Amino acid sequence: MIAEEFKRMLGQKSVIREIAEYGAVRAKEIGSENVFDYSLGNPSVPVPQAFTEKLMELAKNPAVHGYSPSLGIDSVREKIADSLKQRFGMPYRKEHIFMATGAAGAIAHALRAVTVPGDEVLTFAPYFPEYVPYVNQTGAVLKVVPADTENFQIHFDAFRRMISPKTAAVLINTPNNPSGAVYSEATIRELAQILQEKEREFGHEIYIITDEPYREIVFKGVEAPCVAKYHPYTITCYSFSKSLSLPGERIGYVAVNPDCPDAELIVNMCGQISRGIGHNCPPSIIQLAVAEVLDITADLSVYETNMNILYDALTDMGFSITKPGGTFYMFPKALEEDAVAFCKKALEYDLLLVPSDTFGVPGYFRIAYCIPTEKVKRSLAAFRKLANEYQL
Amino acid sequence: MIAEEFKRMLGQKSVIREIAEYGAVRAKEIGSENVFDYSLGNPSVPVPQAFTEKLMELAKNPAVHGYSPSLGIDSVREKIADSLKQRFGMPYRKEHIFMATGAAGAIAHALRAVTVPGDEVLTFAPYFPEYVPYVNQTGAVLKVVPADTENFQIHFDAFRRMISPKTAAVLINTPNNPSGAVYSEATIRELAQILQEKEREFGHEIYIITDEPYREIVFKGVEAPCVAKYHPYTITCYSFSKSLSLPGERIGYVAVNPDCPDAELIVNMCGQISRGIGHNCPPSIIQLAVAEVLDITADLSVYETNMNILYDALTDMGFSITKPGGTFYMFPKALEEDAVAFCKKALEYDLLLVPSDTFGVPGYFRIAYCIPTEKVKRSLAAFRKLANEYQL
Repeated sequence: MIAEEFKRMLGQKSVIREIAEYGAVRAKEIGSENVFDYSLGNPSVPVPQAFTEKLMELAKNPAVHGYSPSLGIDSVREKIADSLKQRFGMPYRKEHIFMATGAAGAIAHALRAVTVPGDEVLTFAPYFPEYVPYVNQTGAVLKVVPADTENFQIHFDAFRRMISPKTAAVLINTPNNPSGAVYSEATIRELAQILQEKEREFGHEIYIITDEPYREIVFKGVEAPCVAKYHPYTITCYSFSKSLSLPGERIGYVAVNPDCPDAELIVNMCGQISRGIGHNCPPSIIQLAVAEVLDITADLSVYETNMNILYDALTDMGFSITKPGGTFYMFPKALEEDAVAFCKKALEYDLLLVPSDTFGVPGYFRIAYCIPTEKVKRSLAAFRKLANEYQL
Repeated sequence: MIAEEFKRMLGQKSVIREIAEYGAVRAKEIGSENVFDYSLGNPSVPVPQAFTEKLMELAKNPAVHGYSPSLGIDSVREKIADSLKQRFGMPYRKEHIFMATGAAGAIAHALRAVTVPGDEVLTFAPYFPEYVPYVNQTGAVLKVVPADTENFQIHFDAFRRMISPKTAAVLINTPNNPSGAVYSEATIRELAQILQEKEREFGHEIYIITDEPYREIVFKGVEAPCVAKYHPYTITCYSFSKSLSLPGERIGYVAVNPDCPDAELIVNMCGQISRGIGHNCPPSIIQLAVAEVLDITADLSVYETNMNILYDALTDMGFSITKPGGTFYMFPKALEEDAVAFCKKALEYDLLLVPSDTFGVPGYFRIAYCIPTEKVKRSLAAFRKLANEYQL
């Protein structure tokens, strides 16, 4: 009576895992400092000292380990609402906030609140591949809108063809993994306008579920608009994993647009959804600790430094790249049509890159440049040799 | 497009919540020290000092906040397996352990691994009411076997009548919330024997999912047998919430019986199940901290002290009670047929008790005696007055 659905998932070969395994073997042979591992989106900068201090202070008090209310600790929700209100000028209150175990937990709740089995959820390539199990295990169906490969905004023609009365939500990710693109105000306005037009046509609301773990990693000269401002039916899924460099502590939240008529209902429903998926709140001590450092981040500047070094060097070599507006990812065009073959070739130069097929677009590759800057610099010679193979 | 299933759950009135709300109002009127709140199973003893020290030591190192592998941190799984092996003499290895966010998270994974929608899961009254959403949100159906009100072991005649080819698993809880009963070796042997007989008859395995957050709270002279020893298809769901008094930190594990032919498969499947329910591991720092204190507990002796005081005094007053073997619960017979009416009467004496209907048995009430001993002593006069109302 083993559930075949999950057993089958184990059989699926993951290219990322294959690359990571190769990297581990290679690291033993030549030392990990000589393997340029650009495969994983694991923050490389330390958690802020202020967080560590708050955590140690809290740890002294055994009372912090008690049960959290099912929607999250009241004072924490209130501080998050205040911070959002101040930052975005929107009337967030604690009633709009549900504490979740990172963005994954937030999305799991948001999806269950506003879809029923059989509904369609649209997302836009390139997209985070975990969206497939996130959506499909709810009983809804994920449909992927092909990429706008010009600048990795939204391919609106394709979107208009795919949206239908079955569309309950669109799941977006800006700043984007893997492209590094930040959706412009024009993109978000157009998305919201189409949704509102289709809502009238179909006679039901269509939610934006916006996955925003990279909200704080936005580069100079780039504006990341607040998505919720443009569409009342917006559920923001936030994670502190990247902003505070603590992905293992599983902390984030759902923030429902205060302008959404069902905002408080959705937050309360998240508490009910939790009961069935065994979530029962993020860890109490971590909730309390992040609430004390809401307005600071880890020193994220290294990501922009790395981006500039790589972008300048790789474009000089002849790579074609949409310049990232944020995140710690870059998404250049591969130097041959088959991105998997290209990334396998890169392994010969100890460059661990991820082919774009994983993200729903053929012919590109992802560089996750959350690694030390000195290593980025040392990797350029390897990229140079790789480019030479293709007569660039 | 709000999911009506979860919206509907919000409409359900909870007697426990009503009692708790009354208690909060009353505490403002007469002071919380004068309200005898026996309604909540919230550990009252502090986390062990050794845990606090380990946590503070870990907090100093920013590297602890990195991603955990999806099955849990290897070294943590290994230490848990070693501890189980030593304690129960069974060949547990890390491959049998999946780290989960408390027992709720563990049960959410175990249920999804060994049931498919439409399957039946049997549990035994009295049972933890959250089993209803835990099971029903997987698509399986929870069926409750009536209680053995003699001694709160298992009503085997009723069980034999209810088990069917659709039964994929039985969900047990020993030591038991709310009865405080510990299943005897005879009970577990008989349960296993029936399951093995029915497995042959039906041609498929039937899992025991054993929910064991109270495993460490067992009173003098009582043996709590290791359930997994009696049935190969056993999945143990453990939580550190009560043993270490840290229910808010959401830490526990799934341990699949090493004798189960699919043990490693089930653990790996839990990693896949996580992707859809947004779980992604318990917090890293908490995983690492509990792994350092596996063989100690909080000072749990107060629960036995409280049990003895209450049991002696209440039986003297004429209450009929099956003496608890563990936990911090007691489940006396109510003094009138309608347990809800009885618990409402108790409120007049500022005693907050939970009627047994919530747990699938009429005519009893639950005392959660995880409160300070001096308060237990002061509450006896109130119980006396309540008993007097019924001419006891």
